[in-house]
Amino acid sequence: MQEKVDLYPSRVKETATIMERKDPIVYSREKGPLDREEVAFYEANGYVMLERLFQEDEVQVMANQLDEVMKQNQERDSDEVIKEPDSNEIRSVFEVHKDNGFFEMLSKHERIVAIAEQLLGSQVYINQSRINFKPGFKGKEFFWHSDFETWHVEDGMPNMRAVSCSIILTDNYEFNGPLMLIPGSHKWYVSCAGTTPDNHYKSSLKQQVAGTPDHTSLQWLTEQAGGRIDRATGPAGSVLFFECNTMHGSNANLSPYPRSNVFFVFNSIENQLQAPYSGKQPRPEFLANRDSITPIQPVKDSIAQHAHATK
Amino acid sequence: MQEKVDLYPSRVKETATIMERKDPIVYSREKGPLDREEVAFYEANGYVMLERLFQEDEVQVMANQLDEVMKQNQERDSDEVIKEPDSNEIRSVFEVHKDNGFFEMLSKHERIVAIAEQLLGSQVYINQSRINFKPGFKGKEFFWHSDFETWHVEDGMPNMRAVSCSIILTDNYEFNGPLMLIPGSHKWYVSCAGTTPDNHYKSSLKQQVAGTPDHTSLQWLTEQAGGRIDRATGPAGSVLFFECNTMHGSNANLSPYPRSNVFFVFNSIENQLQAPYSGKQPRPEFLANRDSITPIQPVKDSIAQHAHATK
Repeated sequence: MQEKVDLYPSRVKETATIMERKDPIVYSREKGPLDREEVAFYEANGYVMLERLFQEDEVQVMANQLDEVMKQNQERDSDEVIKEPDSNEIRSVFEVHKDNGFFEMLSKHERIVAIAEQLLGSQVYINQSRINFKPGFKGKEFFWHSDFETWHVEDGMPNMRAVSCSIILTDNYEFNGPLMLIPGSHKWYVSCAGTTPDNHYKSSLKQQVAGTPDHTSLQWLTEQAGGRIDRATGPAGSVLFFECNTMHGSNANLSPYPRSNVFFVFNSIENQLQAPYSGKQPRPEFLANRDSITPIQPVKDSIAQHAHATK
Repeated sequence: MQEKVDLYPSRVKETATIMERKDPIVYSREKGPLDREEVAFYEANGYVMLERLFQEDEVQVMANQLDEVMKQNQERDSDEVIKEPDSNEIRSVFEVHKDNGFFEMLSKHERIVAIAEQLLGSQVYINQSRINFKPGFKGKEFFWHSDFETWHVEDGMPNMRAVSCSIILTDNYEFNGPLMLIPGSHKWYVSCAGTTPDNHYKSSLKQQVAGTPDHTSLQWLTEQAGGRIDRATGPAGSVLFFECNTMHGSNANLSPYPRSNVFFVFNSIENQLQAPYSGKQPRPEFLANRDSITPIQPVKDSIAQHAHATK
């Protein structure tokens, strides 16, 4: 049996350290929908925002479908349904690529899958999916973190070869708590201090503690970026692809306007999950898909045709 | 004895209401340092940002003096020293225009006093002063509020004839929790629901509850502004003047960069405080000056000359 090497140890020491990334950022740059400039931007910054990748009528369909799923889940008591720390409002519903016909189709849609395949240089599958709803006035902040740190330590994702795809369903302004990203932070790995508690996911989805990067590392990363922190603002229908190790967070939403999106994590079919590096039990399937993994066969469905399914 | 008419009742009913403002916004528009466009912007939006009103060397002097005051107050247990809800970090020190020679001079400095006099159409005095330090990573959000609502109900300020002056000592970015303002909101008065607890100031400076506007009114105000919420971003040395009734708030500061400023509230000498409209005891002097009020005689001191006083 092959020995498992932990390229990215974290939560194993009392102090945090920063190390260089050991994996490529872009696995295949020529083939695919993104042009050279877009790929270069993603490689340099750890993300790329594609303005209005979906049209207004398509966004309307997605928003209606999202509302429908929120309504269906309002009274559902399930780990897959995440509520705000201080209220009964739903923040996220997970596993929509399995539980809902429309979002299953969307998760396979060629317009996004082909980009994930291009960046990851292979066929891909969904590691995690969710729809997010950050309500006006009440949406709480989420502190800086690298998704990969958690996916590696708690889920056993071996390499940095995954990309998150966020389809923005409401206009994202500077003032309604947009995702903030530290450009270039994906080139470094912050090994966090501390250890992973049992069943950490039950609290970390509301407010993360273990796996939270230290202030010194965050300041260092920001200084590497020339003091710049970017915000994923843009009109509804835009799509943000961000690398699994890009440091990101978001402020509270003090505005009256909700911020909702559909969120798919594409992982390379060659980067499937192993046993968690924490030595703990794996997190549940809805957070980290392991069952019956097969590569996505992209579909070219018309999104607009789903307009009437939920009305 | 003259009967006291409450033009702006609030915290007297179970539900919130919005009424029109009953006072002028600009009391004198011709005389003073602001040009017509700046006055018109202030009148329309409820604030005006004056870029780099103070030069770099002056900002450096102010920042050093602010650090000095913070250090002097680190261990001081006083109502005038406000700490973060979750930590021992100082957020604000009040009464700096009385307790500190440098900030006393600054509070009388012609460069800002003349602007306050122009907007308020009279001589002015300081109703409240403080220096604010919003630390990187830890600075918490402050929800929407109109200062006038509190100053009226809890301090007995009769009319809307005061202006806040915030001298920005650190670059304010979109991402370090800048002040957010709803343009035009000063033209309306949100009468808040609920009542004022005794000694409300002891908790409200950390997190306000009574006098917090309701979501419906806030959404209405934002819609009046065409869905726009502005942020007071700008380089260090810029000065924001905002009308006492302009709805404002701020997000947490998730960035590594602190956000500090010097804050003076200028009130018209003709708008001195009465008994609080809440019927409660007046708040302490450091929050609402009543003792020995005299109009400011503006000074033209060189700020740079204070460079060595604290080194």
